[in-house]
Amino acid sequence: MDTALQSQRNRSYAIIGTGAIGGFYGAKLQQAGFEVHFLLHSDYQFVRQRGLRVDSVWGDFTLDSLNVYNDVHQMPPCDVVIVALKTTRNSLLTTLLPPVLKESGAVLMLQNGLGNEEAIAPIVGPAHILGGLCFICSNKVGDGHIHHLDYGTITLGEYAPDYQPLGITATLQDIAGDFEAAGIPIQFAEDLLLARWKKLIWNIPYNGLSVVLNARTDEIMKNEYTRLLSEQLMQEVGAVAAAYNRKIPESFIQKMLDHTAKMKPYITSMKLDYDHHRTLEIESIIGNPLQAAIAKQIPVPKIAMLYAQLNFINSQIQAK
Amino acid sequence: MDTALQSQRNRSYAIIGTGAIGGFYGAKLQQAGFEVHFLLHSDYQFVRQRGLRVDSVWGDFTLDSLNVYNDVHQMPPCDVVIVALKTTRNSLLTTLLPPVLKESGAVLMLQNGLGNEEAIAPIVGPAHILGGLCFICSNKVGDGHIHHLDYGTITLGEYAPDYQPLGITATLQDIAGDFEAAGIPIQFAEDLLLARWKKLIWNIPYNGLSVVLNARTDEIMKNEYTRLLSEQLMQEVGAVAAAYNRKIPESFIQKMLDHTAKMKPYITSMKLDYDHHRTLEIESIIGNPLQAAIAKQIPVPKIAMLYAQLNFINSQIQAK
Repeated sequence: MDTALQSQRNRSYAIIGTGAIGGFYGAKLQQAGFEVHFLLHSDYQFVRQRGLRVDSVWGDFTLDSLNVYNDVHQMPPCDVVIVALKTTRNSLLTTLLPPVLKESGAVLMLQNGLGNEEAIAPIVGPAHILGGLCFICSNKVGDGHIHHLDYGTITLGEYAPDYQPLGITATLQDIAGDFEAAGIPIQFAEDLLLARWKKLIWNIPYNGLSVVLNARTDEIMKNEYTRLLSEQLMQEVGAVAAAYNRKIPESFIQKMLDHTAKMKPYITSMKLDYDHHRTLEIESIIGNPLQAAIAKQIPVPKIAMLYAQLNFINSQIQAK
Repeated sequence: MDTALQSQRNRSYAIIGTGAIGGFYGAKLQQAGFEVHFLLHSDYQFVRQRGLRVDSVWGDFTLDSLNVYNDVHQMPPCDVVIVALKTTRNSLLTTLLPPVLKESGAVLMLQNGLGNEEAIAPIVGPAHILGGLCFICSNKVGDGHIHHLDYGTITLGEYAPDYQPLGITATLQDIAGDFEAAGIPIQFAEDLLLARWKKLIWNIPYNGLSVVLNARTDEIMKNEYTRLLSEQLMQEVGAVAAAYNRKIPESFIQKMLDHTAKMKPYITSMKLDYDHHRTLEIESIIGNPLQAAIAKQIPVPKIAMLYAQLNFINSQIQAK
């Protein structure tokens, strides 16, 4: 069922959203010799004139000459389109995706949370849809300037309707090969939905509580009450995943708790958005999992409360 | 079963905790001619030398000459001891109460939350115990300086073991008479526990959320998500009250919501404590009701989450 993509090094990439994630991975691909086309917004003029600077724990580099665009209709159709927009802007994809995607191409959703692959399926026709979960600390620190602080592995899985597990497909292997050629560690998810729920086990409590309590992960874990609350939120996430036949063992939850308690102090992506007065990615990270719970009548009172609190905080950010 | 207290105007009052509540009501009683003895702490010297100033919507006044103490052993035993400490300091009552209480006297707990009367029962022997719920906006704005902004009614009820309803007792009427003589509106609670739960219907959501969300009541009510969350928290409180045979009708919850939505912007007492980096009254307002729910196996996941969040915030206040 897999149609072969263009052979390696010949595949072209489009980056929709050249921020901390899209900018970093796109720059790594171009550095490795791939043809990459970047869609930019606020710093289009800056990058066009002065290039893209990447300070990275894997080695600093600067790209002086890039294919940059501020209009998707100027971009060539590409073999692989990487979507790295904030999910709060996903309504733009109806307009942004079709022009840059070859008919036999693939879309890779490098986004947080649940439901992003499903949402674009009606837009992209017969193209392959992949989901990528980025385990990375990377920030955009200024115009055309990305700071990659730690980690960087991507977990890749291919999407099928109703999130039927597809295993490790040829498309997955093709794209993984390109990323690995660019020095990016890849793990395969044979079941994309299971991978998404496993990441939500971490993302829901820590992204949510870090904003509501204005706290780092180490502070949340040091306090006995919020350590327990994190665990209870994880249990609720696990119960919803189980209702979709994705069983996440209790030992995974305990591993996440232990790991987070030992991790160096970490500021979650939602907390970074909060600190910079940016709209929070509430729907993809909390709202869609909450809707998934409601659809299966799984009680998740604490996720629901977190969702309400985050919406309150978000409305205050937007009122500023 | 009621032993008569001393006749009106002859009753002596001790104020344990001369703050926004104890200072205000104590000053009103002295202004009306009652003998009042004030226990002070941080502003003892100030008040001894310069008196107590009350700026009040009921009329400003200053008491130049007061019976002030910084040591409970210097105080005479009184007919009525008004406890207006913050509940976080209630462990002091074992030491503070016995010396100031006449054997046939009464203790009036003018405190927030649940369980305060029960907690002092073993300390006060045969004395009457009363609970008072203050519906008042009053702040201590400086040494010996109280600002009474609005309201002022006290709901008074008498306590019996297991919070058996006692109706309107003679003691209740005696003390109510004194307060009314001092211009303080009184309402009777025939069932003190029911009155306490009814106040918790309001206090748990708004005190809790105002701190966690750093918000005023009008902001909480203007947002559709936190308005609903307030209602859900109220429903949980109502379910616990019902388990103790105190049925609070749904119409009461709707009335509280409507009233709060229409009220002028209000900063809760817990939010004031938070803003001034003071220890939060978590146990009496949230923790004791939560324990009451656990004892009856009533699920209150949202109250439990609020409790955890407040404990986190409290530990950060105390670390400062």
